[in-house]
Amino acid sequence: MPPETLTPDRILEATEDVLRRFGPAKATVVDVARALGVSHGSVYRHFGSKAALREAVTERWLDQSHAELSAVAEAAGPAGPRLRAWLTALFAAKRRKSGSDPELFATYMVLVGENSGVVDRHIETMIEQLAGIVENGISQGEFRSVDPATAARAVWDATNRFHDPAYAADWSRPGIDAAFDAVCELVLRGLHA
Amino acid sequence: MPPETLTPDRILEATEDVLRRFGPAKATVVDVARALGVSHGSVYRHFGSKAALREAVTERWLDQSHAELSAVAEAAGPAGPRLRAWLTALFAAKRRKSGSDPELFATYMVLVGENSGVVDRHIETMIEQLAGIVENGISQGEFRSVDPATAARAVWDATNRFHDPAYAADWSRPGIDAAFDAVCELVLRGLHA
Repeated sequence: MPPETLTPDRILEATEDVLRRFGPAKATVVDVARALGVSHGSVYRHFGSKAALREAVTERWLDQSHAELSAVAEAAGPAGPRLRAWLTALFAAKRRKSGSDPELFATYMVLVGENSGVVDRHIETMIEQLAGIVENGISQGEFRSVDPATAARAVWDATNRFHDPAYAADWSRPGIDAAFDAVCELVLRGLHA
Repeated sequence: MPPETLTPDRILEATEDVLRRFGPAKATVVDVARALGVSHGSVYRHFGSKAALREAVTERWLDQSHAELSAVAEAAGPAGPRLRAWLTALFAAKRRKSGSDPELFATYMVLVGENSGVVDRHIETMIEQLAGIVENGISQGEFRSVDPATAARAVWDATNRFHDPAYAADWSRPGIDAAFDAVCELVLRGLHA
């Protein structure tokens, strides 16, 4: 078997693995290189610094749910149920991430704290998807006429108990699903024409 | 001048002062007693343990805004503007607390983390006030018919970016007032008949 080419994706996967094993305080570029069986110079050819590597792995992690959510945002049909489906998919993705691998989740919380630019871009993308749904709801006469960007940001803020990792500990508490439904209902009613 | 009687209130004021000076990790009951010029036994006669004293001072701090908010909740007139006034007063009180004395605010965040029962009771009181406004809005035909307790909890959750101390760093950012207005608008529209 020929040796695998060293791609950015392979480096990011190895970095995730190294972070999971050593934690964000101890993980080094040398650990990543060792896990890949290459020199650390080879890693630096793709990511110019440890900071750049950490930023890229954070971005990849945050973006994992983009594709799935984007499909929901662009589906056909009325905007109300689509908005609810989008919020439900986002909450499910966040719960999955925090529940299935809590150690890696904690690691990413550290990285997220380091890379606020990456987080801001992620939130911008999320709010753009929301604005698309709102805009579509207005054009179908289903939602009242509002500024889609402002309304999308308000929907994002109003639902933050169900997507902001600061609340991850709440997501397994009894009553959380009912609380989510009640906020969705309030937000949807707030948008309806 | 006769010596002042040692009341729970005087002890709590001295405790707040000691916490501000020494921080929550170092402050002791002996420090509180020394500040009051009494023996630590005298303090223990009012608060049976250091934990009880910390809990009481946390409760007092959280409750400071109750009276003001309760007056807003019970004012006359239409429920919509009253709900907005209540949310505005809550946000203003939280901002004031976090901005005017950030060190004490950080101290209280530690205490709040220790005393989740106190926090739960505080939130319950807040949601009861909200439920009173919602109920009144329904009886005046201004709000649609919902379960007041569920709707009040949803309003609380939907506005948490503007009262949860986890977001204190956001409260001085540009655009925060517009974001608050947009969420209020969404929530009020969501309740209206």
